Amino acid sequence: MNIVALAGGIGGARFLRGLRAAVPDAEITVIGNTGDDISLFGLRVCPDLDTVMYTLGGGINEEQGWGRTDETFTVKEELAAYGVGPGWFGLGDRDFATHIVRTQMLEAGYKLSAVTEALCDRWKPGVRLIPMTDDQVETHVVVDDPEHGRRAIHFQEWWVRLRASLPALSIAPVGADGAKPAPGVVKAIEAADVVLFPPSNPVVSIGTILSVPGIRDAVAAKTVVGVSPIIGDAPVRGMADACLTAIGVETTAQAVGELYGPGLIDGWLVAEADADVRVEGVEVRARPLLMSDADATADLARAALGLALELKREDEDAR
Amino acid sequence: MNIVALAGGIGGARFLRGLRAAVPDAEITVIGNTGDDISLFGLRVCPDLDTVMYTLGGGINEEQGWGRTDETFTVKEELAAYGVGPGWFGLGDRDFATHIVRTQMLEAGYKLSAVTEALCDRWKPGVRLIPMTDDQVETHVVVDDPEHGRRAIHFQEWWVRLRASLPALSIAPVGADGAKPAPGVVKAIEAADVVLFPPSNPVVSIGTILSVPGIRDAVAAKTVVGVSPIIGDAPVRGMADACLTAIGVETTAQAVGELYGPGLIDGWLVAEADADVRVEGVEVRARPLLMSDADATADLARAALGLALELKREDEDAR
Repeated sequence: MNIVALAGGIGGARFLRGLRAAVPDAEITVIGNTGDDISLFGLRVCPDLDTVMYTLGGGINEEQGWGRTDETFTVKEELAAYGVGPGWFGLGDRDFATHIVRTQMLEAGYKLSAVTEALCDRWKPGVRLIPMTDDQVETHVVVDDPEHGRRAIHFQEWWVRLRASLPALSIAPVGADGAKPAPGVVKAIEAADVVLFPPSNPVVSIGTILSVPGIRDAVAAKTVVGVSPIIGDAPVRGMADACLTAIGVETTAQAVGELYGPGLIDGWLVAEADADVRVEGVEVRARPLLMSDADATADLARAALGLALELKREDEDAR
Repeated sequence: MNIVALAGGIGGARFLRGLRAAVPDAEITVIGNTGDDISLFGLRVCPDLDTVMYTLGGGINEEQGWGRTDETFTVKEELAAYGVGPGWFGLGDRDFATHIVRTQMLEAGYKLSAVTEALCDRWKPGVRLIPMTDDQVETHVVVDDPEHGRRAIHFQEWWVRLRASLPALSIAPVGADGAKPAPGVVKAIEAADVVLFPPSNPVVSIGTILSVPGIRDAVAAKTVVGVSPIIGDAPVRGMADACLTAIGVETTAQAVGELYGPGLIDGWLVAEADADVRVEGVEVRARPLLMSDADATADLARAALGLALELKREDEDAR
């Protein structure tokens, strides 16, 4: 069985770990968001790709959900001693090595997809991890900065430094227009039995991936099941509400289901508390969504995959 | 008083610390060797500049003479886990930060001399440290490699990886021909009351600095005193003998004094064991050369400076 999943960071990575446990023999291709990527200290940092790679490869800091386990921060402290920032981005020593290898390979002319494959040679995540594009796409956020007026800042500056404390007036994946899907992305989607959207941020993770021309159409042609990142009126984790508000969407499972809509998804998994959600043209099922432990996470992934396969069979029978 | 010193790594740095202690009010300009510089992991590493900076700035690992004190090697271990080498070059986590800052500044278009000044803003070495050139000069060593035949390798590969175990057939500062002294180098020499050669390697440290067109002539016009890096028939530390052999010079204080010669140096400090050394046209004095502690090192620097000032006065009187 071939499964494609689009994934952002923590939520996506944890869901994928559950999926891999649920169907260990499946071929899982993960299309990773690179809109959060940023150059820091002259090094290329890909937070979402690394979170997926570390989580599935056993190197993640479980407690915080990103970065390496047993991490130290000597390099960062030394950079601060040189007066070199930003200090608000938490790069640990182990993590630095990943960015050094990546940057060295990029400068040698390798594409991000080839670099990601090389990094995964070490981590053996048990899935094929492909960045959504080899081109540079950076999510920018327009804010009214009390000091500098209205300006566009890098997503990480808004998300990590400001913790989304300034309202986002708009959010845009800069560069997406001219970007091409990385080699293998469209092919993997076309070859997939089903496509899954983990409970990743619908705007700056799934939304950004879908903004790369060619990906949305390829996905829409498949049987797709999404898992709601919202329970009740709050994100399960992170600050997805701040992103949804920016695009004029309510922070509810209903509204996010409608945002994706029947043109894109066929099934929508919501929390039991949201069992009353209805999205026209989309099969909505209520399930426990909290990925509180490995079993619960595998159960959730199994439910999403099960619904997708069920909808796919129905669709095939109807033809 | 204005003093210029040419310096390689450990020996030069320790001598300079003694010199600074001996004449705390002097303006000391250090012209640093960059022929040992190397790009590792996409980062620009300047071993000699850093050794001078760390030693005079209080950050050096005293025991090994290079690298940072309280050093850890997490980044290097992680790079090795990615299969990325070389493993033979000992870059610690604290040290990495220096190379990250340097590389980032170089890529932003700053010259190495400006970068070095910026790094020294943190370390406050108490001397002005200028690289010999902002241009790329790399010392290469020709060896008969049992596996790959005759080939030229980077000095660091010969020195650190092979520990000079293959005889050097020749040693050349590649790029020196077309290099220009860094801004301020010639001016500092011209403004100097005297020039000192610490007991640095006469071939790959002092020799390399002098190979940059314009530096030798500027130095030769001044009163210069050198400190022998050889006691008896062995280098005080390091493997200078392997370099001297490559250029057909004996490993003796006599031979190195003659290598510099009266066209370049006016005075030559040798060990008491070498009191019989005579170099025509050069004033040779025997002194304890071992920089065994801070006092002995300051005494040695005071002796070198004292001899230089004495020869300068004599020269001025004779005119």
